[in-house]
Amino acid sequence: MKSLTLDKLFIDELEDMYSAENQIIESLPKMIKAASFPDLKEGLSNHLLETKMQVERLEKIFALLGLPAKEKRCKGMEGILKEGDKMLENQGKNATIDAAIISAAQKVEHYEIASYGALCSFAKYLELDGEIIDLLQENLKEEKAADKALTGVAEGGMFTDGINKEAAEEKMAKGRK
Amino acid sequence: MKSLTLDKLFIDELEDMYSAENQIIESLPKMIKAASFPDLKEGLSNHLLETKMQVERLEKIFALLGLPAKEKRCKGMEGILKEGDKMLENQGKNATIDAAIISAAQKVEHYEIASYGALCSFAKYLELDGEIIDLLQENLKEEKAADKALTGVAEGGMFTDGINKEAAEEKMAKGRK
Repeated sequence: MKSLTLDKLFIDELEDMYSAENQIIESLPKMIKAASFPDLKEGLSNHLLETKMQVERLEKIFALLGLPAKEKRCKGMEGILKEGDKMLENQGKNATIDAAIISAAQKVEHYEIASYGALCSFAKYLELDGEIIDLLQENLKEEKAADKALTGVAEGGMFTDGINKEAAEEKMAKGRK
Repeated sequence: MKSLTLDKLFIDELEDMYSAENQIIESLPKMIKAASFPDLKEGLSNHLLETKMQVERLEKIFALLGLPAKEKRCKGMEGILKEGDKMLENQGKNATIDAAIISAAQKVEHYEIASYGALCSFAKYLELDGEIIDLLQENLKEEKAADKALTGVAEGGMFTDGINKEAAEEKMAKGRK
Protein backbone atom coordinates (compact mmCIF):
# COMPACT_ATOMS: atom_id res chain seq x y z
CA MET A 1 0.00 0.00 0.00
CA LYS A 2 1.32 3.42 -0.96
CA SER A 3 0.38 6.74 0.57
CA LEU A 4 -0.69 9.31 -2.01
CA THR A 5 -0.02 13.03 -1.87
CA LEU A 6 -1.09 15.61 -4.44
CA ASP A 7 2.46 16.19 -5.67
CA LYS A 8 2.86 12.45 -6.29
CA LEU A 9 -0.51 12.37 -8.06
CA PHE A 10 0.65 15.30 -10.21
CA ILE A 11 3.90 13.51 -11.20
CA ASP A 12 1.96 10.29 -11.88
CA GLU A 13 -0.40 12.14 -14.20
CA LEU A 14 2.50 13.96 -15.86
CA GLU A 15 4.30 10.67 -16.57
CA ASP A 16 1.01 9.23 -17.86
CA MET A 17 0.62 12.14 -20.29
CA TYR A 18 4.26 11.91 -21.36
CA SER A 19 3.53 8.31 -22.35
CA ALA A 20 0.20 9.27 -23.94
CA GLU A 21 1.74 12.01 -26.12
CA ASN A 22 4.53 9.71 -27.26
CA GLN A 23 1.99 7.01 -28.16
CA ILE A 24 0.07 9.60 -30.19
CA ILE A 25 3.24 10.57 -32.09
CA GLU A 26 3.60 6.90 -33.06
CA SER A 27 -0.04 6.56 -34.13
CA LEU A 28 -0.82 9.82 -35.93
CA PRO A 29 1.21 9.03 -39.08
CA LYS A 30 -0.99 5.94 -39.70
CA MET A 31 -4.13 8.08 -39.38
CA ILE A 32 -2.69 10.78 -41.67
CA LYS A 33 -1.85 8.13 -44.27
CA ALA A 34 -5.34 6.63 -44.10
CA ALA A 35 -7.16 9.99 -44.35
CA SER A 36 -8.27 11.33 -47.73
CA PHE A 37 -10.03 14.69 -47.19
CA PRO A 38 -7.27 17.35 -47.56
CA ASP A 39 -8.47 19.42 -44.58
CA LEU A 40 -8.34 16.35 -42.36
CA LYS A 41 -4.92 15.25 -43.62
CA GLU A 42 -3.57 18.76 -43.09
CA GLY A 43 -5.21 19.17 -39.69
CA LEU A 44 -3.79 15.89 -38.42
CA SER A 45 -0.35 16.71 -39.85
CA ASN A 46 -0.35 20.05 -38.05
CA HIS A 47 -1.46 18.34 -34.87
CA LEU A 48 1.45 15.89 -35.16
CA LEU A 49 3.85 18.87 -35.14
CA GLU A 50 1.92 20.36 -32.23
CA THR A 51 2.10 17.06 -30.33
CA LYS A 52 5.89 17.01 -30.73
CA MET A 53 6.00 20.50 -29.24
CA GLN A 54 3.71 19.36 -26.42
CA VAL A 55 6.18 16.58 -25.61
CA GLU A 56 8.94 19.21 -25.47
CA ARG A 57 6.82 21.26 -23.09
CA LEU A 58 6.34 18.22 -20.85
CA GLU A 59 10.11 17.64 -20.90
CA LYS A 60 10.60 21.26 -19.88
CA ILE A 61 8.21 20.74 -16.96
CA PHE A 62 10.14 17.68 -15.79
CA ALA A 63 13.35 19.75 -16.03
CA LEU A 64 11.80 22.65 -14.08
CA LEU A 65 10.83 20.15 -11.38
CA GLY A 66 14.38 18.74 -11.38
CA LEU A 67 13.09 15.33 -12.42
CA PRO A 68 14.01 12.98 -15.28
CA ALA A 69 11.37 12.85 -18.06
CA LYS A 70 9.83 9.44 -17.43
CA GLU A 71 6.94 7.62 -19.09
CA LYS A 72 4.34 5.71 -17.10
CA ARG A 73 2.60 3.58 -19.73
CA CYS A 74 -0.78 5.23 -20.30
CA LYS A 75 -3.28 2.38 -20.52
CA GLY A 76 -6.13 4.75 -21.35
CA MET A 77 -4.40 6.08 -24.47
CA GLU A 78 -3.25 2.56 -25.32
CA GLY A 79 -6.86 1.35 -25.40
CA ILE A 80 -8.12 4.36 -27.35
CA LEU A 81 -5.37 4.01 -29.98
CA LYS A 82 -5.91 0.23 -30.21
CA GLU A 83 -9.52 0.94 -31.18
CA GLY A 84 -8.34 3.45 -33.77
CA ASP A 85 -5.89 0.94 -35.27
CA LYS A 86 -8.64 -1.70 -35.47
CA MET A 87 -10.82 0.74 -37.37
CA LEU A 88 -8.04 1.49 -39.85
CA GLU A 89 -8.12 -2.18 -40.89
CA ASN A 90 -11.20 -1.27 -42.89
CA GLN A 91 -10.90 -1.16 -46.61
CA GLY A 92 -10.29 1.79 -48.88
CA LYS A 93 -10.05 5.51 -48.57
CA ASN A 94 -13.29 7.43 -48.40
CA ALA A 95 -15.37 9.83 -46.34
CA THR A 96 -16.53 7.03 -44.03
CA ILE A 97 -12.95 6.13 -43.11
CA ASP A 98 -12.35 9.84 -42.56
CA ALA A 99 -15.41 9.99 -40.27
CA ALA A 100 -14.03 7.04 -38.30
CA ILE A 101 -10.62 8.70 -38.04
CA ILE A 102 -12.21 11.90 -36.73
CA SER A 103 -14.18 9.97 -34.13
CA ALA A 104 -11.02 8.13 -32.98
CA ALA A 105 -8.98 11.35 -32.93
CA GLN A 106 -11.63 13.15 -30.86
CA LYS A 107 -11.44 10.41 -28.23
CA VAL A 108 -7.70 11.03 -28.10
CA GLU A 109 -8.23 14.79 -27.74
CA HIS A 110 -10.85 14.36 -25.02
CA TYR A 111 -8.61 12.09 -22.96
CA GLU A 112 -5.98 14.80 -23.13
CA ILE A 113 -8.42 17.60 -22.30
CA ALA A 114 -9.46 15.74 -19.13
CA SER A 115 -5.87 14.99 -18.18
CA TYR A 116 -4.41 18.46 -18.81
CA GLY A 117 -7.44 19.95 -17.03
CA ALA A 118 -6.56 17.94 -13.91
CA LEU A 119 -2.84 18.73 -14.25
CA CYS A 120 -3.52 22.48 -14.51
CA SER A 121 -5.72 22.39 -11.43
CA PHE A 122 -3.23 20.30 -9.39
CA ALA A 123 -0.36 22.61 -10.43
CA LYS A 124 -2.33 25.67 -9.37
CA TYR A 125 -3.16 24.36 -5.90
CA LEU A 126 0.35 22.96 -5.42
CA GLU A 127 1.50 26.52 -6.19
CA LEU A 128 4.04 25.25 -8.72
CA ASP A 129 6.21 27.59 -10.77
CA GLY A 130 4.08 29.83 -13.01
CA GLU A 131 6.03 28.63 -16.06
CA ILE A 132 4.85 25.05 -15.41
CA ILE A 133 1.24 26.19 -15.24
CA ASP A 134 1.66 28.20 -18.47
CA LEU A 135 3.16 25.20 -20.31
CA LEU A 136 0.31 22.93 -19.19
CA GLN A 137 -2.30 25.52 -20.14
CA GLU A 138 -0.74 25.86 -23.58
CA ASN A 139 -1.05 22.11 -24.15
CA LEU A 140 -4.63 22.14 -22.87
CA LYS A 141 -5.52 25.03 -25.17
CA GLU A 142 -4.09 23.22 -28.20
CA GLU A 143 -6.01 20.01 -27.43
CA LYS A 144 -9.26 21.95 -27.13
CA ALA A 145 -8.56 23.73 -30.42
CA ALA A 146 -7.70 20.41 -32.14
CA ASP A 147 -10.98 18.88 -30.92
CA LYS A 148 -12.94 21.87 -32.19
CA ALA A 149 -11.17 21.76 -35.56
CA LEU A 150 -12.05 18.06 -35.92
CA THR A 151 -15.72 18.84 -35.22
CA GLY A 152 -15.48 21.49 -37.94
CA VAL A 153 -14.16 18.97 -40.46
CA ALA A 154 -16.85 16.44 -39.50
CA GLU A 155 -19.75 18.89 -39.54
CA GLY A 156 -18.66 21.31 -42.26
CA GLY A 157 -19.32 25.02 -42.33
CA MET A 158 -21.74 27.52 -43.78
CA PHE A 159 -20.44 27.01 -47.32
CA THR A 160 -19.00 23.49 -47.22
CA ASP A 161 -20.33 20.05 -46.44
CA GLY A 162 -18.62 18.11 -43.71
CA ILE A 163 -17.16 14.60 -43.82
CA ASN A 164 -20.14 13.07 -42.00
CA LYS A 165 -22.60 14.30 -44.63
CA GLU A 166 -20.36 12.95 -47.40
CA ALA A 167 -20.07 9.64 -45.56
CA ALA A 168 -23.88 9.41 -45.33
CA GLU A 169 -24.13 10.08 -49.08
CA GLU A 170 -21.56 7.35 -49.78
CA LYS A 171 -23.71 4.97 -47.81
CA MET A 172 -26.82 5.89 -49.79
CA ALA A 173 -24.91 5.54 -53.08
CA LYS A 174 -23.84 2.03 -52.06
CA GLY A 175 -27.43 1.21 -51.10
CA ARG A 176 -28.60 2.12 -54.61
CA LYS A 177 -26.08 -0.16 -56.35
CA MET B 1 -10.67 -6.54 -45.40
CA LYS B 2 -14.12 -5.15 -44.67
CA SER B 3 -15.86 -2.31 -46.45
CA LEU B 4 -17.10 0.37 -44.08
CA THR B 5 -20.28 2.39 -44.45
CA LEU B 6 -21.52 5.10 -42.07
CA ASP B 7 -24.39 2.94 -40.80
CA LYS B 8 -21.92 0.18 -39.90
CA LEU B 9 -19.65 2.73 -38.23
CA PHE B 10 -22.67 4.00 -36.26
CA ILE B 11 -23.58 0.48 -35.04
CA ASP B 12 -19.92 -0.23 -34.20
CA GLU B 13 -19.74 2.92 -32.10
CA LEU B 14 -23.11 2.12 -30.48
CA GLU B 15 -21.93 -1.36 -29.48
CA ASP B 16 -18.69 0.18 -28.21
CA MET B 17 -20.64 2.59 -26.00
CA TYR B 18 -22.97 -0.17 -24.79
CA SER B 19 -19.86 -1.99 -23.59
CA ALA B 20 -18.35 1.23 -22.17
CA GLU B 21 -21.47 2.10 -20.14
CA ASN B 22 -21.71 -1.43 -18.75
CA GLN B 23 -18.04 -1.33 -17.74
CA ILE B 24 -18.69 1.97 -15.95
CA ILE B 25 -21.62 0.43 -14.04
CA GLU B 26 -19.21 -2.23 -12.79
CA SER B 27 -16.51 0.27 -11.82
CA LEU B 28 -18.43 3.17 -10.29
CA PRO B 29 -19.33 1.38 -7.01
CA LYS B 30 -15.60 0.94 -6.25
CA MET B 31 -15.03 4.66 -6.82
CA ILE B 32 -18.04 5.60 -4.68
CA LYS B 33 -16.75 3.37 -1.86
CA ALA B 34 -13.28 4.91 -2.04
CA ALA B 35 -14.51 8.54 -2.08
CA SER B 36 -14.85 10.49 1.17
CA PHE B 37 -16.10 14.02 0.33
CA PRO B 38 -19.93 13.80 0.62
CA ASP B 39 -20.55 15.89 -2.54
CA LEU B 40 -18.32 13.56 -4.55
CA LYS B 41 -19.88 10.40 -3.10
CA GLU B 42 -23.35 11.73 -3.84
CA GLY B 43 -22.43 12.97 -7.31
CA LEU B 44 -20.95 9.62 -8.30
CA SER B 45 -23.94 7.75 -6.83
CA ASN B 46 -26.33 9.90 -8.86
CA HIS B 47 -24.22 9.32 -11.94
CA LEU B 48 -24.42 5.55 -11.38
CA LEU B 49 -28.22 5.81 -11.54
CA GLU B 50 -27.92 8.02 -14.61
CA THR B 51 -25.56 5.53 -16.27
CA LYS B 52 -28.11 2.75 -15.75
CA MET B 53 -30.69 4.91 -17.50
CA GLN B 54 -28.22 5.62 -20.28
CA VAL B 55 -27.84 1.88 -20.83
CA GLU B 56 -31.62 1.61 -21.06
CA ARG B 57 -31.62 4.39 -23.65
CA LEU B 58 -28.99 2.54 -25.69
CA GLU B 59 -31.12 -0.63 -25.48
CA LYS B 60 -34.09 1.39 -26.73
CA ILE B 61 -31.99 2.59 -29.68
CA PHE B 62 -31.01 -0.98 -30.57
CA ALA B 63 -34.72 -1.92 -30.39
CA LEU B 64 -35.75 1.04 -32.59
CA LEU B 65 -33.16 -0.13 -35.13
CA GLY B 66 -34.54 -3.69 -34.91
CA LEU B 67 -31.18 -4.97 -33.68
CA PRO B 68 -30.18 -7.02 -30.64
CA ALA B 69 -28.37 -4.99 -27.95
CA LYS B 70 -24.79 -6.20 -28.37
CA GLU B 71 -21.56 -5.18 -26.68
CA LYS B 72 -18.33 -4.71 -28.60
CA ARG B 73 -15.66 -4.67 -25.90
CA CYS B 74 -14.62 -1.04 -25.53
CA LYS B 75 -10.83 -1.12 -25.19
CA GLY B 76 -10.66 2.63 -24.63
CA MET B 77 -12.90 2.48 -21.56
CA GLU B 78 -11.13 -0.68 -20.41
CA GLY B 79 -7.80 1.16 -20.37
CA ILE B 80 -9.21 4.25 -18.67
CA LEU B 81 -10.89 2.19 -15.93
CA LYS B 82 -7.77 0.04 -15.46
CA GLU B 83 -5.86 3.23 -14.66
CA GLY B 84 -8.59 4.26 -12.22
CA ASP B 85 -8.44 0.86 -10.47
CA LYS B 86 -4.67 1.11 -10.18
CA MET B 87 -5.02 4.50 -8.52
CA LEU B 88 -7.53 3.14 -6.00
CA GLU B 89 -4.83 0.77 -4.72
CA ASN B 90 -3.46 3.80 -2.88
CA GLN B 91 -3.87 3.90 0.83
CA GLY B 92 -6.52 5.59 2.90
CA LYS B 93 -9.39 7.93 2.35
CA ASN B 94 -8.60 11.57 1.94
CA ALA B 95 -8.89 14.59 -0.32
CA THR B 96 -5.97 13.39 -2.48
CA ILE B 97 -7.71 10.09 -3.23
CA ASP B 98 -10.83 12.12 -4.02
CA ALA B 99 -8.79 14.30 -6.41
CA ALA B 100 -7.49 11.16 -8.12
CA ILE B 101 -11.04 9.76 -8.39
CA ILE B 102 -12.26 12.99 -9.97
CA SER B 103 -9.42 12.95 -12.48
CA ALA B 104 -10.19 9.31 -13.41
CA ALA B 105 -13.93 9.99 -13.63
CA GLN B 106 -13.39 13.00 -15.89
CA LYS B 107 -11.43 10.82 -18.33
CA VAL B 108 -14.43 8.49 -18.38
CA GLU B 109 -16.80 11.40 -19.02
CA HIS B 110 -14.63 12.84 -21.78
CA TYR B 111 -14.43 9.51 -23.60
CA GLU B 112 -18.20 9.43 -23.54
CA ILE B 113 -18.58 13.05 -24.64
CA ALA B 114 -16.40 12.33 -27.70
CA SER B 115 -18.27 9.13 -28.49
CA TYR B 116 -21.82 10.45 -28.05
CA GLY B 117 -20.81 13.54 -30.02
CA ALA B 118 -19.83 11.34 -32.97
CA LEU B 119 -22.95 9.15 -32.57
CA CYS B 120 -25.25 12.21 -32.59
CA SER B 121 -23.59 13.54 -35.73
CA PHE B 122 -23.68 10.17 -37.53
CA ALA B 123 -27.36 9.68 -36.58
CA LYS B 124 -28.23 13.14 -37.90
CA TYR B 125 -26.59 12.62 -41.30
CA LEU B 126 -27.93 9.06 -41.57
CA GLU B 127 -31.34 10.67 -41.02
CA LEU B 128 -32.22 8.13 -38.33
CA ASP B 129 -35.48 8.25 -36.39
CA GLY B 130 -35.75 11.48 -34.38
CA GLU B 131 -36.28 9.46 -31.19
CA ILE B 132 -32.85 7.86 -31.63
CA ILE B 133 -31.22 11.27 -31.98
CA ASP B 134 -33.07 12.54 -28.87
CA LEU B 135 -31.95 9.55 -26.81
CA LEU B 136 -28.32 10.03 -27.84
CA GLN B 137 -28.47 13.75 -27.16
CA GLU B 138 -29.90 13.09 -23.70
CA ASN B 139 -26.95 10.82 -22.89
CA LEU B 140 -24.50 13.39 -24.27
CA LYS B 141 -26.09 16.15 -22.20
CA GLU B 142 -25.82 14.08 -19.02
CA GLU B 143 -22.15 13.26 -19.61
CA LYS B 144 -21.34 16.94 -20.14
CA ALA B 145 -23.23 17.86 -16.96
CA ALA B 146 -21.43 15.12 -15.00
CA ASP B 147 -18.05 16.39 -16.20
CA LYS B 148 -18.95 19.95 -15.21
CA ALA B 149 -20.17 18.81 -11.78
CA LEU B 150 -16.87 16.98 -11.20
CA THR B 151 -14.92 20.14 -12.05
CA GLY B 152 -17.13 21.96 -9.52
CA VAL B 153 -16.24 19.46 -6.78
CA ALA B 154 -12.52 19.66 -7.65
CA GLU B 155 -12.35 23.44 -7.87
CA GLY B 156 -14.95 24.44 -5.31
CA GLY B 157 -17.25 27.43 -5.51
CA MET B 158 -17.51 30.99 -4.31
CA PHE B 159 -18.12 29.94 -0.70
CA THR B 160 -16.49 26.53 -0.50
CA ASP B 161 -13.03 25.13 -1.08
CA GLY B 162 -12.68 22.38 -3.63
CA ILE B 163 -11.11 18.96 -3.23
CA ASN B 164 -7.89 19.96 -5.01
CA LYS B 165 -7.21 22.79 -2.55
CA GLU B 166 -7.82 20.43 0.36
CA ALA B 167 -5.53 17.85 -1.23
CA ALA B 168 -2.78 20.47 -1.57
CA GLU B 169 -3.21 21.36 2.12
CA GLU B 170 -3.00 17.69 3.08
CA LYS B 171 0.32 17.51 1.23
CA MET B 172 1.65 20.55 3.04
CA ALA B 173 0.53 19.16 6.41
CA LYS B 174 2.40 15.92 5.65
CA GLY B 175 5.47 17.94 4.64
CA ARG B 176 5.47 19.64 8.07
CA LYS B 177 5.42 16.35 10.01
